[in-house]
Amino acid sequence: MSLVIISPGRNPEPWINALKKSDPNLEIEVFPDVKNPEKIEFALLWQHPEGVLSEYPNLKLASSMGAGVDHILSDSTIAENLPIVRIVDDRLTWSMTNYVVMGVLNFHRQIQRYQADKKRKVWDMSNPEIPVSIGVMGTGALGFDVLEKLNFMGFPVFGLGFSEKSDFPFPYFSKEHMEEFLQKVNVIVCLLPLTPDTENILNLELFEKCNPGTYLINVARGRHLVEEDLPVAIEKAYLSGAFLDVYREEPLPGNHPFWENEAITMTPHIASVTNPDAAAPQVIENIRRIQCNEPLLNPVNRKRGY
Amino acid sequence: MSLVIISPGRNPEPWINALKKSDPNLEIEVFPDVKNPEKIEFALLWQHPEGVLSEYPNLKLASSMGAGVDHILSDSTIAENLPIVRIVDDRLTWSMTNYVVMGVLNFHRQIQRYQADKKRKVWDMSNPEIPVSIGVMGTGALGFDVLEKLNFMGFPVFGLGFSEKSDFPFPYFSKEHMEEFLQKVNVIVCLLPLTPDTENILNLELFEKCNPGTYLINVARGRHLVEEDLPVAIEKAYLSGAFLDVYREEPLPGNHPFWENEAITMTPHIASVTNPDAAAPQVIENIRRIQCNEPLLNPVNRKRGY
Repeated sequence: MSLVIISPGRNPEPWINALKKSDPNLEIEVFPDVKNPEKIEFALLWQHPEGVLSEYPNLKLASSMGAGVDHILSDSTIAENLPIVRIVDDRLTWSMTNYVVMGVLNFHRQIQRYQADKKRKVWDMSNPEIPVSIGVMGTGALGFDVLEKLNFMGFPVFGLGFSEKSDFPFPYFSKEHMEEFLQKVNVIVCLLPLTPDTENILNLELFEKCNPGTYLINVARGRHLVEEDLPVAIEKAYLSGAFLDVYREEPLPGNHPFWENEAITMTPHIASVTNPDAAAPQVIENIRRIQCNEPLLNPVNRKRGY
Repeated sequence: MSLVIISPGRNPEPWINALKKSDPNLEIEVFPDVKNPEKIEFALLWQHPEGVLSEYPNLKLASSMGAGVDHILSDSTIAENLPIVRIVDDRLTWSMTNYVVMGVLNFHRQIQRYQADKKRKVWDMSNPEIPVSIGVMGTGALGFDVLEKLNFMGFPVFGLGFSEKSDFPFPYFSKEHMEEFLQKVNVIVCLLPLTPDTENILNLELFEKCNPGTYLINVARGRHLVEEDLPVAIEKAYLSGAFLDVYREEPLPGNHPFWENEAITMTPHIASVTNPDAAAPQVIENIRRIQCNEPLLNPVNRKRGY
């Protein structure tokens, strides 16, 4: 009985150390150097090569290394009855919210304007605040925390989700009321899971319906955004700019137009990085639960897509 | 009976409109074009020329246009028994806190590093967060709100003040325990009032006692900081940088070394700008109270200095 880590291009050491700390007896192998594939019962995955799980005939559980599972669900070769779980980690939520609040405040208080003024030695006190009203697309654990923190800070907030909700503590719009939602806000935060319903949801048609000069913060997945539409929407002033952490191709290719677009602030997919020390106990606990036939932590509903 | 606005170099129109909205009958004059100085009973002040209040023999009340009153108390010619009041405005507190939280998050999440990486088209995911522990110097209305919001966001916070406090809801150090306070934190936020006790408090001797790489956010007054000590403290790595909104001379002179110091982020005294519409009712109410001999709103204790 052993666990395989499959995360090409990433250093597995922090995960190995964290898992060993949680369960010193766990045997761990690292893809692609797996010695005993028939002993593998658990897989810890981040962007695994499609089809590779078929090498482990006794696999009982697949766990994402993070909150997202689109990289697992997109592999159609995975056995239909293989349970899949994801990481829900307060620390991950905390980092994500801090990042989003930073993006909101930097827009609200125009940090880039003042940075440019400093370079030109300009002292301009006029209009120090852009009034903001924040719309959060995706109202799961991450979106909820963003709504709660920004609300506590005194900002108007609105949530948009893909289900009907009756007792949500913040103004809430279901996706059928997208236009009303967009009319309420001038900052959009995308925290949706990536599913066939949400892929490409951030596109020119949506941006056209925004209040002019709306600011986009995408911290979910690159494939939520039709990337070629973003510079057009900025050019047409539907959007005033964007704060992006995720891209369709990562690392972002050197010839990508985002690098040189001054209205786009970028970070290299670091908004929320799973901390192996915080997440490993969840993985170990799920290994125990599947062995004891107990309900899993943070199970993924394949039909729903997250 | 009339009010004089004395705020050289600032446009008085927004204040005139706001005061008229609160009390259409109030007669308002604007320094230096005062036609009936003997009719002036109230003065609304921002950086008035020293000694100028002696032109109004019937002055009953001086109000600051903002939260600070150092610009009034520094004028030793003002009659000892003239009541002085200041503005305490939730909206002003809100803006200040948002600015400070932005400064904390930009340090914590290293926005400048990612901006520089973008320019060089570098994708570097390593070490996305600098752990932060925030010390707020000054625990009045402004400092308290900063502590409360950062605490709600899940950051460790510590307050430092000039009085003993027993029932403060956050860890609190009185100024005698400055060194212990500095050892607890790696971000210092200065929100102290400017008094003889606090002038020049941010100096090389204090920076030497900080945890190496501490980040300074000064949103109080320029005279809290010994400006020539800041580049030295950065050079010696006592501090990793600073986020400044206030300066000893404003506008900051063109030859000031801060303009070209890349470790210093600067804004032109806009962290918290009094909104005349929000503040005017307080001024009008204090005019009513002084006429009715009622206790004033937000009175200034000259001995304490704020």
